[in-house]
Amino acid sequence: MPVCRGKTFKYEKASILSYAAVVGKAESDGPYGGEFDEVLEDNKDSAETWEQAEALLQSKALKHAMGKAELKPEDMDLLVAGDLLNQCTGSSYGLKDYYIPFLGIYGACSTFAEGLLLAGAMVNGGYVGNAAAVTSSHFSSAERQFRFPLNYGGVRTPTAQWTATAAGAAIVVPESKPPYIRAATVGKIQDMGITDLNNMGAAMAGAAYDTISRHFTHMGTHPESYDLIITGDLGQVGSDILSDLFRRDGVSIDKYHKDCGLMLYDREKQDVHAGGSGCGCSASMMCGHFLKRIECGDLKRVLFCATGALMSPTMVQQGGSIPGICHAVEITAK
Amino acid sequence: MPVCRGKTFKYEKASILSYAAVVGKAESDGPYGGEFDEVLEDNKDSAETWEQAEALLQSKALKHAMGKAELKPEDMDLLVAGDLLNQCTGSSYGLKDYYIPFLGIYGACSTFAEGLLLAGAMVNGGYVGNAAAVTSSHFSSAERQFRFPLNYGGVRTPTAQWTATAAGAAIVVPESKPPYIRAATVGKIQDMGITDLNNMGAAMAGAAYDTISRHFTHMGTHPESYDLIITGDLGQVGSDILSDLFRRDGVSIDKYHKDCGLMLYDREKQDVHAGGSGCGCSASMMCGHFLKRIECGDLKRVLFCATGALMSPTMVQQGGSIPGICHAVEITAK
Repeated sequence: MPVCRGKTFKYEKASILSYAAVVGKAESDGPYGGEFDEVLEDNKDSAETWEQAEALLQSKALKHAMGKAELKPEDMDLLVAGDLLNQCTGSSYGLKDYYIPFLGIYGACSTFAEGLLLAGAMVNGGYVGNAAAVTSSHFSSAERQFRFPLNYGGVRTPTAQWTATAAGAAIVVPESKPPYIRAATVGKIQDMGITDLNNMGAAMAGAAYDTISRHFTHMGTHPESYDLIITGDLGQVGSDILSDLFRRDGVSIDKYHKDCGLMLYDREKQDVHAGGSGCGCSASMMCGHFLKRIECGDLKRVLFCATGALMSPTMVQQGGSIPGICHAVEITAK
Repeated sequence: MPVCRGKTFKYEKASILSYAAVVGKAESDGPYGGEFDEVLEDNKDSAETWEQAEALLQSKALKHAMGKAELKPEDMDLLVAGDLLNQCTGSSYGLKDYYIPFLGIYGACSTFAEGLLLAGAMVNGGYVGNAAAVTSSHFSSAERQFRFPLNYGGVRTPTAQWTATAAGAAIVVPESKPPYIRAATVGKIQDMGITDLNNMGAAMAGAAYDTISRHFTHMGTHPESYDLIITGDLGQVGSDILSDLFRRDGVSIDKYHKDCGLMLYDREKQDVHAGGSGCGCSASMMCGHFLKRIECGDLKRVLFCATGALMSPTMVQQGGSIPGICHAVEITAK
């Protein structure tokens, strides 16, 4: 049973039974393109709009994850899902036809870690026999919602990141099998004072530093304790800031640090500027690549730290800044 | 410890230690105006915009709830919060300066029940020593986000509801004291095919019926088992549909049913059409009125069922319908 008061949660009965990722064309053209479960034909696939295509991504990701575990919708106890679309409609529209108890969450691009953390807590606490964490993002729906309609043809700044067209789903159960969810640290909101909608990495780096530092302290660990520290989508700008923040403490994380935003695309050939972003970025890299490597024992202990920019165009237009958050989930092979 | 596999969660160690509600002028002019902890001077109070005023509402509600329990931010383990504003910024901007671990949730107007359910689960499961559920809504920020800018002066339809300018916060702890959170049923998304942004009640009624029916079945209860069955904000249209749906099963809930949307305002004197709505509607009625009545034993057993319309103007403009959800939390005096 869970042991701690506040701070970092411990899990004794939370394993990831199955997982799946569905991505768009650009993501499939990246270095990990061969590892995803399905690739959309184009940005809309069989849907009529980008928003509906994003909902379809989530629906497909959950379907693949359930299929691998031979679970039907009526076997599922709980979905924990969210996304970037206004009012989380990628999740509510994409998952409504499964008719599974549904808890909506919002953590911007940190959503997959928040979902794993909560799905793990509900399974480990004995509330449910299984729970799926699901999330998505879509380049075209996100750009027009948060910045400009694509038709506007705005020039992207060097700090801008490319919202991944991707979804991931993972099903957590109490049965003992790798990958195991062992611990999790809930993020505190950090406001770095960033007001540029095209500089998410800087807005999130402080939150990543805070959560990872607290996780180290509570667990008595340090960078060398992990095979990898995987951040969600800091991109190049945010990753550099994170490295600097740790260096101030005399700690180097560079050797162990990987950022999903710097992995999903081939930045030499693909025009993604500072890297990938979006809930689907870390969700697809985890469900397409990393969870497999943990399951087979290639990676023994990983700290997955998805970062989110809790931004609102309305607030930014009013002069507000962009608060960041980061949730950390420790996942192990044993 | 929690016992069930999926379905309805049971809680043995989850009490509501303190709670508070902050409302706007119209809400303070309603029948329960004297019961709230603070009333804003006007729709903006000391903020510069309606969105910032909504964030202020949440900040104030949490401050009052912590104050009553003599808790400081550094004593708090977890916040579970969300709201209607695009990207839940009422919560992230309103609560960021407390620097408390934060889980963002999105359940539209069902958010307060989802927050109580999760805060209770994390406390009862031993993950945290306390957890606060916080939510808000604001008439002026919601209207311009979901429908029309207020300056447009659109005529409201008879089915329209009035989004409450209100926030509520409740702090859950494992110590034994009333009100107790005893059980909770997570909602399934229900799509009634409603496409009218001004008919939330009809969109949510099916979800309320589904969740309440499942809660009765899992708990072996019926309407007479409760002093009150309190829905969030079905309003007149949704309440009538809910009554009809139960009547088809030969069940009458009318004698036990109260709807926060029909209570918050004086519908004879205040021009709120089908009733109140918004996350703050049920949150303020619970934290201002009902939790007091449960705490003092005036109400022994209550089923609180907050309803949410998982709507998106974008999806509705594309011809989509408005899915509904309802989460139920059973709260008792003993």
